[in-house]
Parts: sequence; structure tokens; C-alpha cells
Amino acid sequence: MIRVAILGATGYTALELIQILLRHPEAEITALTSRQEGNPPISSIHPQLTARIDMPLESLSYDEVADRADCVFSCLPHGASAEAVAPLLAAGCKVIDFSADYRLDTLEVFEQWYGAGHPDANRLGTVVYGLPELFREKIRGAQLVANPGCYPTSANLALVPLLVAGLIDSRGIVIDSKSGVSGAGRTPKLATLYPECNESISAYNVGQHRHTPEIDQTLSAFSSKPVEVIFTPHLTPMTRGILSTAYSYPQGDVSETQLMDQLREFYSGQPCVRVVEHLPATRHCSGTPFCDITARRVRDRVVTISCLDNLLKGASSMAVQNFNLMYDLPEAMAL
Amino acid sequence: MIRVAILGATGYTALELIQILLRHPEAEITALTSRQEGNPPISSIHPQLTARIDMPLESLSYDEVADRADCVFSCLPHGASAEAVAPLLAAGCKVIDFSADYRLDTLEVFEQWYGAGHPDANRLGTVVYGLPELFREKIRGAQLVANPGCYPTSANLALVPLLVAGLIDSRGIVIDSKSGVSGAGRTPKLATLYPECNESISAYNVGQHRHTPEIDQTLSAFSSKPVEVIFTPHLTPMTRGILSTAYSYPQGDVSETQLMDQLREFYSGQPCVRVVEHLPATRHCSGTPFCDITARRVRDRVVTISCLDNLLKGASSMAVQNFNLMYDLPEAMAL
Amino acid sequence: MIRVAILGATGYTALELIQILLRHPEAEITALTSRQEGNPPISSIHPQLTARIDMPLESLSYDEVADRADCVFSCLPHGASAEAVAPLLAAGCKVIDFSADYRLDTLEVFEQWYGAGHPDANRLGTVVYGLPELFREKIRGAQLVANPGCYPTSANLALVPLLVAGLIDSRGIVIDSKSGVSGAGRTPKLATLYPECNESISAYNVGQHRHTPEIDQTLSAFSSKPVEVIFTPHLTPMTRGILSTAYSYPQGDVSETQLMDQLREFYSGQPCVRVVEHLPATRHCSGTPFCDITARRVRDRVVTISCLDNLLKGASSMAVQNFNLMYDLPEAMAL
Amino acid sequence: MIRVAILGATGYTALELIQILLRHPEAEITALTSRQEGNPPISSIHPQLTARIDMPLESLSYDEVADRADCVFSCLPHGASAEAVAPLLAAGCKVIDFSADYRLDTLEVFEQWYGAGHPDANRLGTVVYGLPELFREKIRGAQLVANPGCYPTSANLALVPLLVAGLIDSRGIVIDSKSGVSGAGRTPKLATLYPECNESISAYNVGQHRHTPEIDQTLSAFSSKPVEVIFTPHLTPMTRGILSTAYSYPQGDVSETQLMDQLREFYSGQPCVRVVEHLPATRHCSGTPFCDITARRVRDRVVTISCLDNLLKGASSMAVQNFNLMYDLPEAMAL
Repeated sequence: MIRVAILGATGYTALELIQILLRHPEAEITALTSRQEGNPPISSIHPQLTARIDMPLESLSYDEVADRADCVFSCLPHGASAEAVAPLLAAGCKVIDFSADYRLDTLEVFEQWYGAGHPDANRLGTVVYGLPELFREKIRGAQLVANPGCYPTSANLALVPLLVAGLIDSRGIVIDSKSGVSGAGRTPKLATLYPECNESISAYNVGQHRHTPEIDQTLSAFSSKPVEVIFTPHLTPMTRGILSTAYSYPQGDVSETQLMDQLREFYSGQPCVRVVEHLPATRHCSGTPFCDITARRVRDRVVTISCLDNLLKGASSMAVQNFNLMYDLPEAMAL
Repeated sequence: MIRVAILGATGYTALELIQILLRHPEAEITALTSRQEGNPPISSIHPQLTARIDMPLESLSYDEVADRADCVFSCLPHGASAEAVAPLLAAGCKVIDFSADYRLDTLEVFEQWYGAGHPDANRLGTVVYGLPELFREKIRGAQLVANPGCYPTSANLALVPLLVAGLIDSRGIVIDSKSGVSGAGRTPKLATLYPECNESISAYNVGQHRHTPEIDQTLSAFSSKPVEVIFTPHLTPMTRGILSTAYSYPQGDVSETQLMDQLREFYSGQPCVRVVEHLPATRHCSGTPFCDITARRVRDRVVTISCLDNLLKGASSMAVQNFNLMYDLPEAMAL
Repeated sequence: MIRVAILGATGYTALELIQILLRHPEAEITALTSRQEGNPPISSIHPQLTARIDMPLESLSYDEVADRADCVFSCLPHGASAEAVAPLLAAGCKVIDFSADYRLDTLEVFEQWYGAGHPDANRLGTVVYGLPELFREKIRGAQLVANPGCYPTSANLALVPLLVAGLIDSRGIVIDSKSGVSGAGRTPKLATLYPECNESISAYNVGQHRHTPEIDQTLSAFSSKPVEVIFTPHLTPMTRGILSTAYSYPQGDVSETQLMDQLREFYSGQPCVRVVEHLPATRHCSGTPFCDITARRVRDRVVTISCLDNLLKGASSMAVQNFNLMYDLPEAMAL
Repeated sequence: MIRVAILGATGYTALELIQILLRHPEAEITALTSRQEGNPPISSIHPQLTARIDMPLESLSYDEVADRADCVFSCLPHGASAEAVAPLLAAGCKVIDFSADYRLDTLEVFEQWYGAGHPDANRLGTVVYGLPELFREKIRGAQLVANPGCYPTSANLALVPLLVAGLIDSRGIVIDSKSGVSGAGRTPKLATLYPECNESISAYNVGQHRHTPEIDQTLSAFSSKPVEVIFTPHLTPMTRGILSTAYSYPQGDVSETQLMDQLREFYSGQPCVRVVEHLPATRHCSGTPFCDITARRVRDRVVTISCLDNLLKGASSMAVQNFNLMYDLPEAMAL
């Protein structure tokens, strides 16, 4: 049994993570941390867990966490996460980090998008980016994995196979993404209040969303030229799900069949991506570990459509996919 | 032109009120107050109002408000509202109070449900309860009107005509109400975050909701015996609307026809209540000043179903209905 | 491996059933039937199932079904279901019937609520009602189980323990239920079109809903006197979930603690009911096999609140709970 | 008083149209048509209208309509609409057509997107396209106006001012639109059933949506070169609203300020477009006659965001805007 701790267990991704780990035959949750006072039971925060797990939220030192756990999932916010990760790695834990702290390769880009001050900057550039479909072998040997962002996962899984095969141009890519509200987290804010979100869709952080450099970085790694995407996220009146509609230019005379064949071949045998003929809806992936992808030729353009559950393939099921790889378990175990 | 001020103009009921007053031929908004810093334009808080009203939110003294306005709508929270109302009345303003401060007749009941300390307790028992369908004549002459709560309005409008005609027993009344989330206000809270409310219904404040004594008081006023209702509110995944399903015992051998006839007669000629044959849905009243009501006989019981838009007939359109009565204007003007 | 067939596999309950059976270690789906032309793959109807099951929808004779399956889940509509069930039982299959055909004990009551003509009326009165928490032992030995309705399950699980212990009166029970729209099925109808349901709640079939006699029958079985409930269903703007708020009179001087203790004791050790201190929300049970129940004393009344996922504990997970019992497997296997 | 008839009065746009006309001081509804049997009152189809209009749905001949009405709003489906419009024009009525029948200038393009067979093809190319912000003067003199599609209105209002001023390139335009479900009409279909749409977003008709040539045609009219857009509509879980995010290339070195200045100047004094600094949400326009527009520079691209209520500025309030212009009334009367 692999002993597992979750840092910052009060949010929506932690709730999903706990539910997956409860049915995981090789993992045992041994610690849940939070700054909540009085060590309340986790089920008082997430009533869904009543009668399924009887464990308190604790405020633990890094040593205490390292004593109790072989592997740590950090659901802490960026900045706070890197502060926790460094000592845990030093103590020998494996770590899967949900925050953005280790996703970007350079401090310069990190500071441009997240502001000054990274508590563990030296490690940047050496951390494995935990997108299993692209970096499976590196993940297997990693002690620390940076779990990707939800938007980048939906976009990168659709575009990398086409870029890598030279079917689309690396210039001129537009990614128009629509996300459910759970992506904004569980901290009360006016913008995510029910009457503000319901019966309404809007773009936000246009040209400024922090997932932009993460998409650029991954697409660039699979292209001969640096990629700079136009990325627009939209807040959609639903709890879960991301749908990304991406527009790119074909390289030469590329047919829809070629696009679909390449996607199918690229993901052949991969357990968590489904290349589909139909136009996917987020509902099809909700509650599942899948990313559904399709491609169309429209006039002079390639349109790819990909969707996933932002809390699962966009966060927690992907984290467990990484965990499974790190411990040499079947990749889709418990997903 | 009647000069009108709105206190506490940042909430959902104030937004609706502003929109009604903007189309009111006899009212002119002359002040909007709030504790926001820097006198931001109201349209920066409610973008719906862009290009429709160009007025700042100001932090004004009661004297300044009284100087600018003939009539004041107070959308302040309970406690704060009574503090503002007393000096405005002294300065000669008419006041329509959205808070609960003046709805209950006795300090004892107020303190039992709202806690100790009413800033203007002496006035309790003398204030007109602003439910036009029941207290129209008193409202006409009033300087201060207590605008009713949204739940009580939906319940009282269905039950009073049947009680008053002796068609139902005053004992054993159960009111099961379902409300949209806007009723909980615009202050960010975990309970009204989108992912907490969406795809979920739940009861809240069971046996403890503060609208209970307000329903008891009005029903008792129209019954020979004191009424104590069982009232259960439910948070429903929609922005607007209240539906109240009320269960009562018939007095003797009462038919569905008798129930409907009495409702029709009671509301004959009244502009904001529709007695309907079909089972009403909150959608039918959304955006309108109507309360829709129907009644059924089921086994040994009477079931009434009533619905309204909690922000309109449950708050702001009723406030303007009261305003119209107080200024001898057609009751439904601008609604 | 137990070979399993699903009749009428295109609806929402069948989709949930398939997903549960796909992870069931002792069941293997061997046939999916429907009247669809051309034997389309099930994933073309339910894209959620893409890459998870590769099986056509077939139009099979009862003999063909009986050849392929040991156990048959019938998701056919009432009337059609009994027509299929009779020959399958004769051929030796075990059957779990989702329809209402075998839930009521007498033809008289069936015809009163469902209209004349039951194709297998002689069997009425001999069929086990598949509510495991109440009829576990009978289910173990049954060849045919009538899977209960969603509303009755939510109401009966809350009320039976209190009735049986004499804590509440069998007279005067009111059940006010709120259901998500998936309960109305997958056949396109104006009433369940998105714009008709969204942002709206309404009561329907007041005093006439066919689940009424099913609730009466079960409560009566656990009471010394025949029970006739007042039952009002409401269509709620959510896909899944039922919340039932039930109002009853205490027998004598009953405290909230007594109510909760009785519920806890009654469900002690039962895997699919959670007696909870907090007020449950349908969201807590969504995607789970649980029914959450709590009770309150309010003035002269007992208020119980129970909720469940109408497609799971209200249909498909309960069907598999019955399946597990019928085959002597752990009751919560795969749930 | 202008006598007004509405053909096909059972849909969502007709409901909105009726509500606007009921408050219009110069219009009187004199006929509502539909193929419904038995001349039911309109309020039996749209319960929202109870007590507000007492008029039957009738199956009338064109002569009867022309006798009763000066102006006819046709909410009939394409094909059927042109069949009705031709005789009404011949009888001297003014007509505002909600269908696509007269929006396109050539039979060739019509047949390419809508299939063979236009019942009144000779008129194509002579009909005024009823987008008041672009064709105000032509509308004033028109007997027949083709009321624009909802998607084209949201896209064209954002892009035309920038194209006309040479601020953006006519090549390479991508329009990613998100629409509420009411846009799909009131006829029951699986795709628009509540459980199919709720908690889900999806693209549909990718590369094939019939509004594509309508956008092409209008943008081409304001550009020196023919425009061919990439247009992707998405079905969004909300009843009302369209948000269009459009991506285009700037012509030369264009700043965000230049973009916004041009939008502001173009719409200066226009009553139904608001150029806004903030990122608009469909909620801001819901229930209003406004289209809200903003523009941003992002990397090498121009991003415009525009939104409106698909049933109002995307259909019925725009129709009344056209009506007002055709009858020389204030453009925003009753909106």
C-alpha cells in the first residue's frame, strides 16, 4: 500500500482526488491537511464523503507529512505549494503538484505571468510536466511531477499530434475555451456567485490568462518554431467541463481524414484519450478520465474540438494517472 | 416628478428597483447610496445599467438624502435599515423599507427571531405592512411602509383568501417553499457559490427561517385563531423565482370549485395577482409583477400553489406598487 | 460470470446501469435491446460509452434474450415490460424490472392509476418489491424483483423507520418532492425541453402522480393502519436528484434525538443509506448509491428530509443492489 | 394605431414580440396565427401572457390576415414564410420576416445552404436586410424587411465598424459563438432536451451553419474584398443569450484605443448598441434590446466580444426596431 497525503484538501479538485483514491487498490490516504481550525472531519467540509472516509483535516508540519506519506498530492495555491514541495522532496517523498509552481521552465516566464518571487526557483526547468500522453516515460522516473492546468490539457492534447506531424502551422493558432465554474475554485467570490454565473456566458482575462504560457511552452516543445497562441477562456454556466475549440492553418493540402488518422494513430492504445467522429460535448466526459477529441476542415482552416472534465482529466484523474505511472501501476488504475 | 433615493443600491433588489423606476413616468432617481469607496458609477456595479443611468453611488448623510429625495427606498440590511429610516421619517420623507425591521408588530417577536436590539423599537406595531392586496387602504395614507418578505408574500396571497372565507382550517398549515438563489443576496458566501447550488436542491433553516413569524402574523390577522405554520424553505438551482406549495385542511366539505371561486373573487380587479387554472411555474412570473395562484383538492387536504419573481412581486415591483399607492398613482404604473 | 441483458437500453437509467455493470466483477453484459433500426452501436446513442463498450443495440426475441442472458434488467415502459418479463421468467431467467408493472399488489390499484389492461396480472401480489433496506431477505430468493420508483424510495426510506417504531402517526403525512428532469425520461417532450425547465420550478400531476399508490402500499405494510399520503412532485431545474421533504405528526412526545436514533439504528450496517446530522442536498448523493436522510422536530410536526440520485439509488444502483442480493454477492459490489 | 398580425405565434420569439407590442403605444395586435386546432387562447400556449392578452390563435387565410393587419410579423419557418409573405405584400401589408427566406441576396447561395426551392425567388436581391445600425435609411422606406439572424447580428455589429474603417483585415476572420438553447426553437427535439443540454457545452454544425453566408454577405458589403468567415456555433447551457468572440488580424499597427474609438464613434447616438470598456456577459443584455461590444488587442490579433439577447436584439426587439423605423416612430419605442 502506498501511503498518500493530500495538502489543501478542502477544494473541489481534492474532493475528486479523495474519491478516486478511495477506490484505488494500491493507495491509502494517510493525511489530509488544511488550515481549518479544530481538525474537523473531512466529511464536514465535503458532505459527499460521509460514511466513506473518516479522517480529520489537520494542520501538519512538513516533517509530519513526510512521516506519514510516501507520496504527496499538493492542492495548495501557487507560491504556497512550492514552499511545501521543496522540503517534502528533501525528505524523500514523491510529489504531484496541482499548482502552477513547477509547470513553467523558466523563472522569467513564471514571473512575467505570476509575479515576482518563486520560493523554489532553482528547480524550474528540471521538473517533469505531467501530461502522460506526451511525457509518459519521463513521468515514470520522476520524483516530482507538475500536474498540468486544465485549459492547457484540453488544448495541447488536440494540437500536439497535428503539430508534430506537420499537418498544421505553428503560427496563427487561436484557442477559444469554455470552462465550468468549478475551475475558479471554492473560495467565495462575487464573480462565481450563482446569480452572477447562471444564465450567462462571458470571456475573462482576455489576453492575460496564466495558462497562456503553459500552452505556448508545450506546443513549442513539439514544433520547430516557438508557438504563441491566442487563448480566450470563457466562464460557462455549468459546474464541470472544458471545451476547447482551436483554429489553426493547415500546412499544405491536408484533408479531414488525414487529421483524424493522425489523431487516432497518436492516441492508439492510450487509455484516457478518445478520438471521436462526432462533435463531443463536455457532458460525455463529465465524471470520466477521458479527453474527447475531433477535427474538422472548415474553409481554409483546421478546427479541432476537445473536451474533458476540468476536475478529472483536467486535474485529479490526471494526477492519479501520473501517480500510477510513477509507481509502475497500470496507467488507468482506479480512474 | 417625485424625487426618489435608494439606500444600499448595490444588491439584486436595488438593480430591479432602478430598472422599474427608470421607466416610471412620475419618479426620478436622485440619489443612490452605498458604502463603496470613490463614488463609482452605478453601472460599474450593475453593467446591465450601462447607458441607461449615469449616476454615482454616494455615501450620503441622512440629511443629504432627505434634501434630495421625497421618497426613500431602503435596501439596507435589517438593523442598519431602521437606523436610517427613523431620521428620514423625521425629516419628512416617505419611506419604503425592504428590510425586516418594521414587518413584525412586537419587539418580543422581532428579538426572538432577529436577536436583541432594534434601533427604532417604539415604532413597531404602528407601521403598515406593505402587501397591497391585503392592506391597500392603509398603504395609501402611510408615511412608512414595511415591504413584505418574498416567502411570506407567496404564501399569504394563496392562503389569506381561503382563511378569510373559512374554507380552510387555521391549524395544520404546512408551507413548502422553493426559492431561487438571488434571494440570498449578492454578498459572496460559500453556500451560494455556483458549484454549491447548481445541480442541487436542499432545504435550509428548517424550523428556523426568519420569515416564519411574518407569515404567522399575517395569517393570524385574517383568522379567528392565532396561526402557527410549518414553513420549510428550499434553495433551488435557479436565479429567480419562488414557488410555495401549501397544505391545509378544508373546513367541512369544500370543493375545488369553491376554492378557485373564492380566489377569483378575492383578487377580482387586482392588477398583480393572477388566479390560474393550470399549475403555475416560476418561469411564468419571472420578470413580471404577478403572483400566480391555483388551488387543488387532494384526498383530505387543500393544496395551494403560488409563485412569483422573488425580486419583483417578492420585493421591488411590490415596492413600486406601494409607492404608486402612497402617491395616488395607478397601482400598476411602470410595473 | 453472470450473463446480463438490458431491455430498452437507450434511456438514462440504462446508461447508468451499463456504467455500473461495466465495473462489476461478476457481471458481463451480453445483450442490449431496443427497437432502433440497423443495430447501431450503443455508443452512438450514449457517446459517454465510447471506447468503454462495443456492443450493438439489437431487436431480439425473448428466446434470443433468454439464450444469451442469465439475468435480465428490463428498462421497458410499463405494459411493454410485463409482456417481456413473463416469457423470460418462463425461460428461467432472473428479472429485475424497472417499470411499474409489478410494483403494486393488486390489479385494482394498478388499473386505477395506470389504466386498464395488465398483460401479466396473475403475478401481481406475489412479486418481491426490490427495496433492499426493507425486503432484503425476500429479494435474496426472488426470481423476479420489481425495482421501486424513485420518488417512493426517497419517501419510504425516510418514513418507514419512524412508522415502524411508532414515532409518527400514519395519518396526515405530506410528502413534497423535488426531482431533476432526467426522471421524465429521454423521449423529447415540450415539458422537458431545456427552455421550458431551466430557471423554473413547478408542481406537476398534483394529486394524480402514479407513485402515490406505491408509497401508500409500502407505508401501509409497515403501519397498523392503511396509509394515504398527500404526495406532490415538483420538476426542478437540474438533471439528477430527488429531495423529499415529508411532514408527519409525532405520536406523543417525541424528540429530535429519538427520531435520529431510530433512523441510525434502523440503517445500522446498511451500505446505501446515510443518516446525517446536516441538512442534505441532492448534490451530496449525485453519482452515488446513497440515500441521505435526516429528521427535525418543527413546532407540532416531524419533518424528514431525504435525498438520492434518481438515476442511481432511485433506479440503477438499486437494481444492481438487488442483483447482488439475488446472486449472493456483497450488497454494494460495484456501486 | 397600427394594426399588427403575428404569423406563427407559438414560438419563443413570438412570445417576446407579443410582450413588446403589448407595451407599444402605436401598435395593436389584431391577429395571431398558428396551425393549432380549436383556436386556443394564446395564453394557453404561453401562460406568461395570462391576464395580459386575451386573443385566440387562429388559422387564417392570407386575405383574412391582410384584412386585419397593416403590418405582419412572420415567425414562420423558412420556406413557409416566403409563401405567406408574397401574397401579403401583394395585398399591401408591410412585412417583417423573421425567417431566413429573404436574408440572402442570391438564389444560388440560398439553395447552397437551405436546399432547393425558394417560393418567391424573384424577390431575392431586392429585400432590405433589417439590421438598423447598418441599413437604417433603407429600412425606413421598405415594405418588406428581412429580420437578421441572431448569430450574424452579434458578429456583424462587432466587425463591420472595424472593417469599414480599415482597422482589420477582411481575411482570416474567425467567429466563435455561444448561444442559449432558446435559439433552437420550441419544437421538442432530443438535442434540446433539458438533460442533454444542462451541464454541457458543445459545438454544432461546425463549418455548416446556415448563418455563415449571412455573415459573409454583410461583412463583404462593408469590405473591399469578399469575406469568408470561419464560424463555429456552440450550444450553451442557458436559455437566452449569444456571445460572439471574433478573432481578426489588424491592418497595420492598430491600438486597442483606436479600435474602441472607432466602435464608439460608429455607434454614437445609436440606441441599441453599447460600446463597453468591460468584458460583457450575456446576462448584462438579457431582457434588453442592447448589443454590448468591446475590443481587445491580443498579441498579433484583434479580439472583439459582443453579446445580446438572442430573442430580443437577436430577433424580436430588433424586429420592433425595424417596425418603428418603417413607421417613422422613435427607433427605440417600447424596447
